[in-house]
Amino acid sequence: MRPVDAPLLGGILATDQYQLTMAEAYWRDGLADRPAMFDFFFRSLPDYGSHQAGYAVLAGLGWFVRWLDTVRVTDADIEYLATQATPAGDPRFEPAFLDWLSDAGGFGALTVTGVPEGRVVHPNTPLLTVEGPLALAQLVETPLLNALNYPTLVATKASRVVDATGGAPVLEFGMRRGPEAGADAGARAALIGGCTATSNVALSATVGVPPAGTHAHSFVQAHLALGHGEVEAFRAYAATHPDECLLLVDTIDTLTSGVPNAITVFSELRAAGHEPLGVRLDSGDLANLAVQTARMLDDAGFEDTSIVLSGDLDELVIWQIRSQVREEAPALGLDPDAVDGRLTYGVGTRLITSHGAPSLNGVYKLVAVADAGGRWHPAVKVSEDPRKVPAPGRKRLVRLRDRRGRATADVVALVEEPASPEAWDLRHPYEDVGRTLAADEVSDVEDLHVELFGPDGRRVGDESIEELADRRRADLDRLDPGVRRIVNPHRYHVSYTKELRDLRDRLVGELE
Amino acid sequence: MRPVDAPLLGGILATDQYQLTMAEAYWRDGLADRPAMFDFFFRSLPDYGSHQAGYAVLAGLGWFVRWLDTVRVTDADIEYLATQATPAGDPRFEPAFLDWLSDAGGFGALTVTGVPEGRVVHPNTPLLTVEGPLALAQLVETPLLNALNYPTLVATKASRVVDATGGAPVLEFGMRRGPEAGADAGARAALIGGCTATSNVALSATVGVPPAGTHAHSFVQAHLALGHGEVEAFRAYAATHPDECLLLVDTIDTLTSGVPNAITVFSELRAAGHEPLGVRLDSGDLANLAVQTARMLDDAGFEDTSIVLSGDLDELVIWQIRSQVREEAPALGLDPDAVDGRLTYGVGTRLITSHGAPSLNGVYKLVAVADAGGRWHPAVKVSEDPRKVPAPGRKRLVRLRDRRGRATADVVALVEEPASPEAWDLRHPYEDVGRTLAADEVSDVEDLHVELFGPDGRRVGDESIEELADRRRADLDRLDPGVRRIVNPHRYHVSYTKELRDLRDRLVGELE
Repeated sequence: MRPVDAPLLGGILATDQYQLTMAEAYWRDGLADRPAMFDFFFRSLPDYGSHQAGYAVLAGLGWFVRWLDTVRVTDADIEYLATQATPAGDPRFEPAFLDWLSDAGGFGALTVTGVPEGRVVHPNTPLLTVEGPLALAQLVETPLLNALNYPTLVATKASRVVDATGGAPVLEFGMRRGPEAGADAGARAALIGGCTATSNVALSATVGVPPAGTHAHSFVQAHLALGHGEVEAFRAYAATHPDECLLLVDTIDTLTSGVPNAITVFSELRAAGHEPLGVRLDSGDLANLAVQTARMLDDAGFEDTSIVLSGDLDELVIWQIRSQVREEAPALGLDPDAVDGRLTYGVGTRLITSHGAPSLNGVYKLVAVADAGGRWHPAVKVSEDPRKVPAPGRKRLVRLRDRRGRATADVVALVEEPASPEAWDLRHPYEDVGRTLAADEVSDVEDLHVELFGPDGRRVGDESIEELADRRRADLDRLDPGVRRIVNPHRYHVSYTKELRDLRDRLVGELE
Repeated sequence: MRPVDAPLLGGILATDQYQLTMAEAYWRDGLADRPAMFDFFFRSLPDYGSHQAGYAVLAGLGWFVRWLDTVRVTDADIEYLATQATPAGDPRFEPAFLDWLSDAGGFGALTVTGVPEGRVVHPNTPLLTVEGPLALAQLVETPLLNALNYPTLVATKASRVVDATGGAPVLEFGMRRGPEAGADAGARAALIGGCTATSNVALSATVGVPPAGTHAHSFVQAHLALGHGEVEAFRAYAATHPDECLLLVDTIDTLTSGVPNAITVFSELRAAGHEPLGVRLDSGDLANLAVQTARMLDDAGFEDTSIVLSGDLDELVIWQIRSQVREEAPALGLDPDAVDGRLTYGVGTRLITSHGAPSLNGVYKLVAVADAGGRWHPAVKVSEDPRKVPAPGRKRLVRLRDRRGRATADVVALVEEPASPEAWDLRHPYEDVGRTLAADEVSDVEDLHVELFGPDGRRVGDESIEELADRRRADLDRLDPGVRRIVNPHRYHVSYTKELRDLRDRLVGELE
């Protein structure tokens, strides 16, 4: 819980110290206001060990753009920086540099173009390009990466979890195990990734989505400790929430106590004119308990109630539960589709921590800088690892669709290349592999970059969660089903144009 | 980046929805103000797969207590709750319940006792006990778990990383890959766990620890793109920070370009009366490059410079690097201790995400509730998994030390038991294993619980990071070295007294 009396947190100093020491060095050499361009991209998709992502969902952008638009250099920021000292006790930063920073005032001089939030994205493609004064564009590296890496990771995981349910609602429950204040961004990302709701009340209120939640074991425990039975606990809950009664049935024993007691209370509710919502199972063999619970609810005439499952779920576990439910339902005389169709999933820890792949390797790299005459020079970095060499220069990102309308490749091109070539001469971003795509094999060329933030203020940042979730859904619908697989997904094509690949290889050659 | 125009985030509604629906049910039955008691504990130590933690470091408490002390129910909170509706469109919460919440105003009616922040702690022991009105103590569950689980995980990982360096400085660099706003709490936890500094400027300012950082690859890249050489980039940085010159030497090639250019600039600095700090290596075979760099720096007369290593480090990688450095140094005529002693480590992603174990299974369980006459009743929950049955009632937590002064067991006892028994009749928390410890085998019995927050306001929350880091260090010094091992640590004893174990088993038996 971030303290309220810590005004510097979340402000302009929400960055790495080296961004400031570099900014001063640029300023000293008259380079602080020199136009520069940085790209944000990630290098590889999350790999969860036993399963892998075939795509990612970009998230975090709306809050980042709102922050860019509103954050200001404050007197407190400058006063603090003036107290930083070298080991010898001298001021670390020159007062005139701090004046420059104070005059800059914020990030209003930057322009951000890129892929809108909620879209399906792929590695080694420029997702955002930040252009503006070198020192400011440098300073924003850390907050940008901090704002996008983690939410993109969670939105990606959420999208996979939602896909694994076959369309059943998924509720995000992870705040308690989530990363402190970051749990809010995690819950927001989960909603973008397709979750129906989150249990996080303040976040729900902020984004305008109704929160989800009923009661915990402690509610039953408290009643038990006071000498009441489980049924009296259920009755107390039902009396308070008669039209939204969903009961947690595993505090004592699911099949011998919880479900029978729930059915008793559900019958009382119905007699009083209310229909119950259902039950939640939070422990044990969830698939088997779900089938048996469905049988008991059916027999009691509550065929329309939901069965919410929770407890260390993720996309693989849900996949397994659904397949087990389908296997076991017929033995109890149940329609497998009907049982599957009444399931809802509460997903907590493993979603909000992106279990198995707790970080996204998103980076922010200088791709061009202007000389004193205003002419742009592409920038490159060499590395022993060819995957770490970024694509230089100002670029476009386009999505090619095949004749069926399915997304078939994301292509990175230099802006000066023709937008609709006769044939696409494509190269792998770093391997020595290429292919040519004739124009008639491509049904649609979509430019993925739009203006996101500019000198005249915010461009995005107020989009609703529904708009962002719709964007993901629309992109998923146009993705090859193989790429959406939970385990061993097909590899989606990411290509550089031959011209871009040649430029990069030439620049690297000049440095080596 | 949490938006500034979202006042509900981080407030009293930073909780799960079911805490509110339960609170209303308690309120409706006249139980909202009934005294209740909840324990916070975690069930098992982080297991990173190939390595495991033998202890944990409690963190997050200071910020949590400051939040408890300052957070208030606002008009905006109540107005939002009044808009929540059932599916039928009726208000979800009764206005009189919202009046009750509004009148409660905050968490001032709660008392928190427990283990001070920064201390070494173990599983299945009550780390905090929250006592107060049932509905408020319930409401605080989610923010408490959110505030403590993640920081404790990071402080634990940091402590292991710092231990693995053999005392070398460790710098926390993870903000860019960290969990959005949670990265601040992560950096703070890293400092509690023993890191020397963090690169996070705003967090450093907030906790009063100088931040760490010099320059990135982009600084060299920008100069290269403008037609300057690497040496001119280094010179520009050195001119701005002559007394704190630490150069990143792997943008082009570490041994053929970076280190020779750094030596050139270091010599110029020395000629101008400044001593350089050192170099940073961020890629490649770090151990081998470190040894070769040490040789080159020595030959040039810069024996006192540091070599900072960074790039996907964690406790295992550092352990391996140090062992490799010790093996390879003699072949280059270097003293292994001298090379090892000049190394500093920058640790980012794997620390702030607790790589390998991204969540701590901390829980908050009802352990007692008072009846209308004020008599306390212990609460319990049954589970198929005996590890999930919490210890009921009001308890003490004591640390027993052996004759050498080493911590030998953490013991959970009922408060009514004698504080210094003739013999300690101990049981495993859930297995059927026991042992007896004679009083003369115990040199010291330390009560670990103190008052942390009470009706007269905050008790802790303003402790300095240095105090918290000192607490960790003092506890580690009194821990058996086997428990501190990075891989396959010895298991530290956590015991319940026989009386506590008997009470729990009896209560569970009554429910089953």
